[in-house]
Amino acid sequence: MTTDRRIGPRIEVVGLDADDTLWHSEDGFHRVEQRFVELVTEHAPAHTDVAGHLTVVERRNMVLYGYGAKAFTLSMIEAAIELTGGTVPAGTLQSLIDEGRALLDRPVELLDGVHETIGALRAAGYRLVVITKGDLLHQHQKVAASGLDELLHAVEVVNEKDERTYSGVLRRVGVEADRFAMVGNSVKSDVLPVLGIGSRAAHVPYHLLWSAEHVEHDIDIDVLSSIRDVPGWLDALA
Amino acid sequence: MTTDRRIGPRIEVVGLDADDTLWHSEDGFHRVEQRFVELVTEHAPAHTDVAGHLTVVERRNMVLYGYGAKAFTLSMIEAAIELTGGTVPAGTLQSLIDEGRALLDRPVELLDGVHETIGALRAAGYRLVVITKGDLLHQHQKVAASGLDELLHAVEVVNEKDERTYSGVLRRVGVEADRFAMVGNSVKSDVLPVLGIGSRAAHVPYHLLWSAEHVEHDIDIDVLSSIRDVPGWLDALA
Repeated sequence: MTTDRRIGPRIEVVGLDADDTLWHSEDGFHRVEQRFVELVTEHAPAHTDVAGHLTVVERRNMVLYGYGAKAFTLSMIEAAIELTGGTVPAGTLQSLIDEGRALLDRPVELLDGVHETIGALRAAGYRLVVITKGDLLHQHQKVAASGLDELLHAVEVVNEKDERTYSGVLRRVGVEADRFAMVGNSVKSDVLPVLGIGSRAAHVPYHLLWSAEHVEHDIDIDVLSSIRDVPGWLDALA
Repeated sequence: MTTDRRIGPRIEVVGLDADDTLWHSEDGFHRVEQRFVELVTEHAPAHTDVAGHLTVVERRNMVLYGYGAKAFTLSMIEAAIELTGGTVPAGTLQSLIDEGRALLDRPVELLDGVHETIGALRAAGYRLVVITKGDLLHQHQKVAASGLDELLHAVEVVNEKDERTYSGVLRRVGVEADRFAMVGNSVKSDVLPVLGIGSRAAHVPYHLLWSAEHVEHDIDIDVLSSIRDVPGWLDALA
């Protein structure tokens, strides 16, 4: 790849979000949430918004539990007990544990176009770094199962995706902010803090977005309809 | 510090285990396990080894849940349901959730001598890297609360402490194996794999050891009675 005629910085490192950017994730949480509503509603006749209370408990627990399926499972159990005034049968709670376990045990299913695109980016000489929140063990297991790990320079599982986190990742990876570009499905986590440190970012929406990732903003952002559009977007940045 | 008259490699990076090496941890899990036995035994008259079954469930879940208080809490709930044939009251399960939450929320209490020793090692020019298993969010929260973070070069939260993990940490930190020494309370996790890659290691026992960390071996290892002995041990290695 020639860089002679390029103007502006050449991107060297591409950051990739994982859940709902490389592989399906939120659809699984969404299915389990629907199952939670089915299982708990019959024991919680006084409540009209069973799913809403689960979200309340999840948010309340986030500072202590963080992200991921274990945190979600503990919040489901707690929400079920609260919604039923303590009358939820243990068998129902066991079903919720089993649903949470199935989320952890779910086979990795890559999104359309991911394998070819990651291969093409690697072949083009970009260093690829997965930057993801969530459970340390589970995220590394998913990377290993994805078949992508040989193509990746590094995998960074982080607690929070804010400007400080991204600056730390760039320092560890050894790249200047103007040589870094991030790709992900969350404007809040994958785009705004990256633009905030002077790097580039592209939003590739997934058809579901976890409520905790919703954000209001009035910034012009680059939106791609598929990860397949990333190589062309990177070319256009140069 | 002069190195002129030293023979053999000079240690540059000291790895430090966290739980039960820098601060108290297992005593909290031990107290919660005793509380589990109290809470569950009255509903499980058919079982004589309530604590033993919890350990069975913990080990069964380890590959999926990993280490830490969230994994432990989920295993307590599952063990309570199994031990009681599903008759455990939801209020008891809520108590177990609260006990697990208290583990996550526990103030960091440094072991005797840690603060002075870490300060002395830093002042002597060693780069200090905390290398710990457990929950990503919780371990970073504990480091932040410990007051030690300013003295640390890096914090590595890992899934498993085996030779491959240590080699990866050394590569990331940028140090040769013969310039690295590890200090920790687990022979299995902090000593044997470190010796296996050609580095040095000291065992500083804690008065409690989690059953999953028990290991049989016939290797001569350096045992220190307190972290206060680490600087002298490092001097003697040179």
